[in-house]
Amino acid sequence: MKKIKPISGFPEWTLEQRLVEQEVLRIIREKFELFGFAPLETRSVEPLEHLLKKGETDKEIYVLRRLQAESDEGGKLGLHFDLTIPFARYLMQNRADMVFPVKRYQIQKVWRGERPQEGRYREFYQADIDVVAQDQLPLQFDAEMPRLLHTVASALPMPPITVMVNNRKVMEGYYRGLGVEEIAPVLRTVDKLAKIGHGGVMKALVEEVGLTTEIAGKCLALASIRSEDSSFVEAIRALGVSHPILDEGLEELGFVMDQLADLPAGAVVADMSIARGLDYYTGTVYEGVMQGLEGLGAVCSGGRYDNLVDGGNITFPGVGVSFGVTRILGKLFGDGRIEASRKTPSAVLVALTSDERRSDSVAVASALRSRGICSEVYHLPQKYGKQIRYAERKGIPFVWFPEADGSGGHEVRDIRSGDQESADPATWSPPEEDLSVRILVK
Amino acid sequence: MKKIKPISGFPEWTLEQRLVEQEVLRIIREKFELFGFAPLETRSVEPLEHLLKKGETDKEIYVLRRLQAESDEGGKLGLHFDLTIPFARYLMQNRADMVFPVKRYQIQKVWRGERPQEGRYREFYQADIDVVAQDQLPLQFDAEMPRLLHTVASALPMPPITVMVNNRKVMEGYYRGLGVEEIAPVLRTVDKLAKIGHGGVMKALVEEVGLTTEIAGKCLALASIRSEDSSFVEAIRALGVSHPILDEGLEELGFVMDQLADLPAGAVVADMSIARGLDYYTGTVYEGVMQGLEGLGAVCSGGRYDNLVDGGNITFPGVGVSFGVTRILGKLFGDGRIEASRKTPSAVLVALTSDERRSDSVAVASALRSRGICSEVYHLPQKYGKQIRYAERKGIPFVWFPEADGSGGHEVRDIRSGDQESADPATWSPPEEDLSVRILVK
Repeated sequence: MKKIKPISGFPEWTLEQRLVEQEVLRIIREKFELFGFAPLETRSVEPLEHLLKKGETDKEIYVLRRLQAESDEGGKLGLHFDLTIPFARYLMQNRADMVFPVKRYQIQKVWRGERPQEGRYREFYQADIDVVAQDQLPLQFDAEMPRLLHTVASALPMPPITVMVNNRKVMEGYYRGLGVEEIAPVLRTVDKLAKIGHGGVMKALVEEVGLTTEIAGKCLALASIRSEDSSFVEAIRALGVSHPILDEGLEELGFVMDQLADLPAGAVVADMSIARGLDYYTGTVYEGVMQGLEGLGAVCSGGRYDNLVDGGNITFPGVGVSFGVTRILGKLFGDGRIEASRKTPSAVLVALTSDERRSDSVAVASALRSRGICSEVYHLPQKYGKQIRYAERKGIPFVWFPEADGSGGHEVRDIRSGDQESADPATWSPPEEDLSVRILVK
Repeated sequence: MKKIKPISGFPEWTLEQRLVEQEVLRIIREKFELFGFAPLETRSVEPLEHLLKKGETDKEIYVLRRLQAESDEGGKLGLHFDLTIPFARYLMQNRADMVFPVKRYQIQKVWRGERPQEGRYREFYQADIDVVAQDQLPLQFDAEMPRLLHTVASALPMPPITVMVNNRKVMEGYYRGLGVEEIAPVLRTVDKLAKIGHGGVMKALVEEVGLTTEIAGKCLALASIRSEDSSFVEAIRALGVSHPILDEGLEELGFVMDQLADLPAGAVVADMSIARGLDYYTGTVYEGVMQGLEGLGAVCSGGRYDNLVDGGNITFPGVGVSFGVTRILGKLFGDGRIEASRKTPSAVLVALTSDERRSDSVAVASALRSRGICSEVYHLPQKYGKQIRYAERKGIPFVWFPEADGSGGHEVRDIRSGDQESADPATWSPPEEDLSVRILVK
């Protein structure tokens, strides 16, 4: 038989890994809802011209065609490559029915036709959360995002994350105060700091962007500033640059950091090197890394956008973050750092004594299920050793022997320890830690 | 501003409806797991040639192309149109690591380029559950499927379902016993019974399939038999037809019905008119309708397939069912029969007294969240009336006033009744029925 190969860039997990992924998605959902965010799911497709608006992404889009379609049947559809653009479109389509500020989260797959490589997929899950207001969006929401990310990450069976926060206005104002006119190329170059280092950025700022060595050095001086509280403000002031936009940025970022002062050390850091590539951010920007896995790069990111949602004369400012679920899990699965405690939800395998007494086994399973205990009945009246072997291979911790001695007495065995005890299907429960699949972290 | 229109066939729910859908998906998942089925998620794409194997479906497939792709870059990919074919492929790809019988469920979107019409979508959720064994699959699993469907449907906030069960061997054996040689055209015609009625089927069997009036009448006599227990066996025997395949079918279907004798009346019915169109079914077939919404057609369906999984010399028989989640919800939403108790997960809106005292409000929300109570802080220090109005519009039942009288005392108001009481953020909880979003059925 021909061997079937996976398709590069389209990851698939094992049943066991999917149990982990589902639990991770459940936790993310639960925490998003805890903050009062409502779920949205948009269709997977958008009109192509809508996807192309954002620029720079055209080569990543998957376009759809019906196999039997007539040459050209109206507007072309493409698979969405993020969840922000569909959300902005949904918002404008349904704005009359929305209550602002809209707080929505969205956990869906997105598709990008990029060349697959480690940590880069063509199909992957993102978990997005955004607030969008009409006219004005209070800065409190900029502060809420890192708190939310911290709450989510603390609940996940993973290393904790550090959220680095910056504000585009700090960078823009500072650069303008230095007399730099074209801001975007400087931002893009500084954004490469983690990749190409100080020397590389210095060289690029001078040779490619055309700054003087002195100005480039000043830009790097800003990018080197980080603090776990609002003391970065003083450090920046000490650089002696001034501009009204810088003042605005410092005030905003200072407010955000002050609001987050109660979070544990390392949870959030003001970091002036965080630029974020995307053009549509206008204020606060975020980037989160997993502690001890910094090499993986950003596992979540986001920021404030004042002009993304096209509302005609009305502005709809928003702020949000996106969690790269598949990227994180791909790394943790690959490193063997995370796994499920068993390969199936079943806590109990009910043994089958004989074909004639099958209904006894089914009755036991039904009684256990009625109390929320995941159970299955073995399918053939084979030797108990064989039935236990099946449970072992799937990691099912308990095997139930109905009417073990023919006298109507039931027994249940913990196949890990071999301990066997008599039990009543109407009352017996596994220990709390065996009731559901647990996630094990190494 | 240009009005944005929906795309026909690609449904999108409101935030409120998505809360309902998520709860429905959660219940389905929970019940599938209760029976020991493990989750699988396959990629959304399959190689086109793999999708085309099943025949008859070619015009429904969406083919993908990268917008910037070179003319032809290797094998073409298409979006999957069901979850059975990807599962069969996954199984063969990973068979060395699987423990048989494999019990998996899969809840994902599928795509079909069909002409959209009522109850027909181009993108929709299916919830599939299947067991696949190596060599032999005991009939007990054929009996488990209706039990599982009954358990799921009973837990859903929807009308109960009736699962109609038949067996291809009953039909094939009976037709062969009558001397009919070509079975497929008869099956396909009888399958239209609900749509075109007895007269229509009779006419088609004679004029199109070429049966004599007598034989056609005998075929219809079989299709008219239904029973809630295994008494259908006697009724069929009374028709005086005999054939070894018929005997086999009657035995199998009788076994399945006997195993389900404990289910409540109306939950499962042996119905000889259920044929199912798909060629790959080889034994038991299922079709479920919602009681009182029979006009919607089948809301779930499935059957046994002995040859779907291509395992070379080894056979991998399977049995499974698929639940049409989007189809059901589309109908119930459309008829206004189901809704969420509120538009957001938030149970509590914490009012904002002033900008200076924002951290007091954030602290209240954090205290409530730490005990699992979904809460949000109002974003502006507006008049309480305005803050309460926001809660009303989102259906948030409680508004919290931190330090209501400036003395440090907290009060919480049920904005539906207007009752207001003093409360401690460390201990207060909403009544159980207001803790989470509930699904209301009309």
